[in-house]
Amino acid sequence: METPQLDAAGDLRHLLTLDGLGRERITTLLDAAQALRPHALGRVAAQPLAGRTVVNLFFENSTRTRSSFHLAARRLGADVLDFDVGSSSARKGESLIDTLRNLEAMGADLFVVRHSESAAVAALAAAAAPATSIVNAGDGRNAHPTQGLLDLLTIRQHKGSDFGALTVAIVGDIAHSRVARSDIHGLRALGVGTLRIAAPANLLPAERWPGVEICHDVDSALRDADVVIALRLQRERMEEGLVDSLDGYWRDWGLTPPRLRLARPDAIVMHPGPMNRGVEIDDAVADGAQSVILAQVANGVAVRMAILAQLANRTAP
Amino acid sequence: METPQLDAAGDLRHLLTLDGLGRERITTLLDAAQALRPHALGRVAAQPLAGRTVVNLFFENSTRTRSSFHLAARRLGADVLDFDVGSSSARKGESLIDTLRNLEAMGADLFVVRHSESAAVAALAAAAAPATSIVNAGDGRNAHPTQGLLDLLTIRQHKGSDFGALTVAIVGDIAHSRVARSDIHGLRALGVGTLRIAAPANLLPAERWPGVEICHDVDSALRDADVVIALRLQRERMEEGLVDSLDGYWRDWGLTPPRLRLARPDAIVMHPGPMNRGVEIDDAVADGAQSVILAQVANGVAVRMAILAQLANRTAP
Amino acid sequence: METPQLDAAGDLRHLLTLDGLGRERITTLLDAAQALRPHALGRVAAQPLAGRTVVNLFFENSTRTRSSFHLAARRLGADVLDFDVGSSSARKGESLIDTLRNLEAMGADLFVVRHSESAAVAALAAAAAPATSIVNAGDGRNAHPTQGLLDLLTIRQHKGSDFGALTVAIVGDIAHSRVARSDIHGLRALGVGTLRIAAPANLLPAERWPGVEICHDVDSALRDADVVIALRLQRERMEEGLVDSLDGYWRDWGLTPPRLRLARPDAIVMHPGPMNRGVEIDDAVADGAQSVILAQVANGVAVRMAILAQLANRTAP
Repeated sequence: METPQLDAAGDLRHLLTLDGLGRERITTLLDAAQALRPHALGRVAAQPLAGRTVVNLFFENSTRTRSSFHLAARRLGADVLDFDVGSSSARKGESLIDTLRNLEAMGADLFVVRHSESAAVAALAAAAAPATSIVNAGDGRNAHPTQGLLDLLTIRQHKGSDFGALTVAIVGDIAHSRVARSDIHGLRALGVGTLRIAAPANLLPAERWPGVEICHDVDSALRDADVVIALRLQRERMEEGLVDSLDGYWRDWGLTPPRLRLARPDAIVMHPGPMNRGVEIDDAVADGAQSVILAQVANGVAVRMAILAQLANRTAP
Repeated sequence: METPQLDAAGDLRHLLTLDGLGRERITTLLDAAQALRPHALGRVAAQPLAGRTVVNLFFENSTRTRSSFHLAARRLGADVLDFDVGSSSARKGESLIDTLRNLEAMGADLFVVRHSESAAVAALAAAAAPATSIVNAGDGRNAHPTQGLLDLLTIRQHKGSDFGALTVAIVGDIAHSRVARSDIHGLRALGVGTLRIAAPANLLPAERWPGVEICHDVDSALRDADVVIALRLQRERMEEGLVDSLDGYWRDWGLTPPRLRLARPDAIVMHPGPMNRGVEIDDAVADGAQSVILAQVANGVAVRMAILAQLANRTAP
Repeated sequence: METPQLDAAGDLRHLLTLDGLGRERITTLLDAAQALRPHALGRVAAQPLAGRTVVNLFFENSTRTRSSFHLAARRLGADVLDFDVGSSSARKGESLIDTLRNLEAMGADLFVVRHSESAAVAALAAAAAPATSIVNAGDGRNAHPTQGLLDLLTIRQHKGSDFGALTVAIVGDIAHSRVARSDIHGLRALGVGTLRIAAPANLLPAERWPGVEICHDVDSALRDADVVIALRLQRERMEEGLVDSLDGYWRDWGLTPPRLRLARPDAIVMHPGPMNRGVEIDDAVADGAQSVILAQVANGVAVRMAILAQLANRTAP
């Protein structure tokens, strides 16, 4: 399936979603990230992005993801411009697209964009100049492709590359989660064996994906799983009446050691962070031997280096 | 005319205003910016500001101008310290001058300063240590000299260097515009043929400049113009009662395609940004073939590189 | 005395406090800072921190101290990540320790931390990974060790290294001052001859230190002092009822030229900044010949370079 994130030659121009990206392109990106993994904690000797400018354009707060992209860009040698939207011309009524065009005119051609609306990043990509590449750092509940990739990389490191042999359970607020959607797209592209999503009834998504099992309780989702992905519960879900109480959520959906024992003994536990300890995950699980949550964070820098390097290479001067 | 921005040897020490700077110095700066233009979109190989620190000291929000200076400084090799005044000691009651002296004591000697009061940047310059240079990034309604220079550079690129042959119209809220004042000073210094300013009666400035024509409607200002500079309407002008309604302003002063046809067919259209589309300028004009608005933005980086390089060179260790 | 800031080999791993650090370690740090002093105003040729990431993790606003650390780190070649806590996951309920672990997982191993609670920085240090070093940039009213070191360095530069021959007076709000505590610890470690602290009764600390004289008026503290350290009066002390009025404070405790004449004629005047001119210090004193306040600021960059270089060297890859 062709997506607007490819250019006329079929090369990746933007990274907007894993939906339709295909197994081959995803595997290539994971391989590149894996090769960069040892460098993700320090600067790469060859600085492929030296003299390039990466703009962090975050219309929604996220210090963690922004920091991860910042470090990824710096370790490749790029300059990073953190464009502070809160105090910017966006407040003066300038359109997103005018903001983009201005930054392009200043010589930036790599943009990392987060926005609270699902369509906003794709709209920017559609309006971008030919030399511009845009990486979606999370748009509404639509997609968070670099999180999806770092999750795939973390699974592959721990469970090998035969995704067909794996059972993966994603548990929590699926409905509002762009992480869940990107994980689902990525796992399906790599041919995951069994994929289950589990959520309270009013936190299940309206969409259905072929072959994805819907679970209405956490126990049946966890049973014999190789990979358990716990999602963050946004506290505002309680105000919206979607969750009765945090205590009730913890009782029915919290990932505790007894529940984790339903999964395979060598199952890994993942979480995109930041965690609500005692709401969706227990300390003993978050910090336990099966947790790979900090490995996810380290892989995040490697994945972002890989994607920035690939997109920058496309438009290298 | 001597201005306090020159040092004892007559060299440029600060850039505070184009008023009195003179044709020769302005032309030298434009030539330097033009030479840097191809480098404005990426890092300069020789890094003349390597190891130097440029401080962005913005007492008034402006992500665009701050980003432009940031990129200009980085592309010359400087480190940039974005001194966030909103969360700084300025809030704790420290004076502007104490803030400056502290940053000087930390080894910074190039300051880019924006302030909402017209006299504030000159006051800082007067108090600065001998090795310090200050670039005015906009002070009250007084001056915005780098915007003036980038406007002159953009005009020269499109219309050649014989400013005496040109008719320039500046349209909009002249009274509150530091851009208009810097444009007027710069255009007069370069010997512009005809210079017209047009604004509603209560947005005309109190000052008069010899040879500058005052127009009370937009049509007479545009007639046969080579260059049209539209200014941003600050929305707070409506709250202040200076503008009856945005609709009325648009009807009487908006730069539309029919109005633009009053100008010369090869006239260029400029705007300092951010634009209020549908208030002072029509989409078809802003994005049309005569618009050089994004060229202004690109020239802004080159102009700021040129001025930073010149001032840094003066105090090179 | 052993403190948790040393590692198993007895080397400095974190800098949390000067309390118990000992004369030898302090002197070594001062010597290193003195050697870096000429470089504190520009980048060091050998970049010992190239490729390393220093995280500025400020849970309390302080643009000055953060800028000083930023410049110190950059001049050693490090990348600096200003982790903006105000807009970060800390707001989403993530614990301090999870924030630290995430940044460690991204490859950061040098943290500069400021927090409004006295125990918070030590708690982070206790939870940090083995390769991580933490510099306390001020925690509650507990400690501000780099300020203490820069004060010691400034005194040594002006008065020589025989601290036993010196009389030092610290004047102002001692009770709430982490600067006062770090100065007291440092001066006692270096064997200061006479150390006096002076404050209004309700701004005196509950602690007592052997040999430290308590003065109940400013005049008796200043008499024959070689060094006068004026402290900032937090304006909120008035709202708390600890100070009757700023005028009254100025009358009774303000450091004026007549009062300064009680000290030795060659006494130096110090202040950690930002100053409340006309509240705790007179312009004529702040800007007078005896003031070394800006020398303190310059020494601050050198001291921070020294400590970052030493800690980075410990964990150099």
